[in-house]
Amino acid sequence: MSEKIVLHEYADSGNCYKIRLTLAHLGKAYERREYDILKGETRTPEFLGTVNANGRIPVLQVGDRFLPESNAAIFYLAEGSPLIPGDRWDRADMLRWMFFEQYNHEPNVATMRFWKLFVGEENWTDTQKLLAPVKAAAGDAAMKLMDEHLEGRSFFVGDALSLADIALYAYTHVAEDGGFDLKAYPYVKAWCDAVALQPGHVQIGD
Amino acid sequence: MSEKIVLHEYADSGNCYKIRLTLAHLGKAYERREYDILKGETRTPEFLGTVNANGRIPVLQVGDRFLPESNAAIFYLAEGSPLIPGDRWDRADMLRWMFFEQYNHEPNVATMRFWKLFVGEENWTDTQKLLAPVKAAAGDAAMKLMDEHLEGRSFFVGDALSLADIALYAYTHVAEDGGFDLKAYPYVKAWCDAVALQPGHVQIGD
Repeated sequence: MSEKIVLHEYADSGNCYKIRLTLAHLGKAYERREYDILKGETRTPEFLGTVNANGRIPVLQVGDRFLPESNAAIFYLAEGSPLIPGDRWDRADMLRWMFFEQYNHEPNVATMRFWKLFVGEENWTDTQKLLAPVKAAAGDAAMKLMDEHLEGRSFFVGDALSLADIALYAYTHVAEDGGFDLKAYPYVKAWCDAVALQPGHVQIGD
Repeated sequence: MSEKIVLHEYADSGNCYKIRLTLAHLGKAYERREYDILKGETRTPEFLGTVNANGRIPVLQVGDRFLPESNAAIFYLAEGSPLIPGDRWDRADMLRWMFFEQYNHEPNVATMRFWKLFVGEENWTDTQKLLAPVKAAAGDAAMKLMDEHLEGRSFFVGDALSLADIALYAYTHVAEDGGFDLKAYPYVKAWCDAVALQPGHVQIGD
């Protein structure tokens, strides 16, 4: 993989952070290209035509090819590294947690963070007002499930850091931005601390 | 993989159908165990304690181990088969469409089908009434993106059937149950027909 890597991103997004954290663990060099999603910079004709027709970041560019979807991007980058388990069952179990993250966790935990931190409660539409308690409850249910799974475990799959941890860490460790109380999830809290202590770790703001 | 395979499922669910379709293409024998999700049979203490703490089907059981998340289950089953591309980029691109399916497609296209076909519009809550047009528009946006991608292509990734096609076919080919008009997406329609003509294909009702 000697082709140049470019990350098309919005630095505060946890989905973009997953890719930076993976690249940091892999020790890979890359360029960053920042888009202001609040100004619609990922909905321009140029972005839609070249980078991602879905109008979303992050997108991983390798040479002249573009790969949307954060969890697909980190899978591409990490193939052949210890971040993907060598065992077939564990590898599928890692993907299980990554699909859980995109289905049960991100639409609730990340959306609440976006609505509270970037939109601002005073600007919420009626739909957002109606959905906020639904998303808060669903986010809590996701973190409760994580907490129960992590009791007696150091990492989500096997006994080493994998992409499942990176994918779930991205928005979990900043869940308090979205109004969630991490103290209610002691095993999640301990796991967050352990992930942050891994060699090669970088922070979301880095 | 000589361990016994059991699919914990609800036959009408597209997520469960993905696994049956993958198993059919692989020619693998398995048992089916049916749960009535409308009667809460996946929320019993026994189901939550043994099969899936997330209270959802499908769950793939291999021997005495359980794997939730349909797209993780089909990845496990298909490893080493032509349903997962051998090329690293194509493999990640396949996962890209599978994550798109769970994030942009299923929560809209599948949810509208569930609300229309199983809940019934006359029983919708105020929240469902408010969200239905939002989900209809988001489902249409997902299928428009698919249609544009499929112009000039036979399958989602490379030139052969992969798990990306199986994952997206499951709810797309029955999208009209959810009020979507497949005639608006001619390349999607042609791709649906092509997927159904593949050797080894089974139907959702089988």
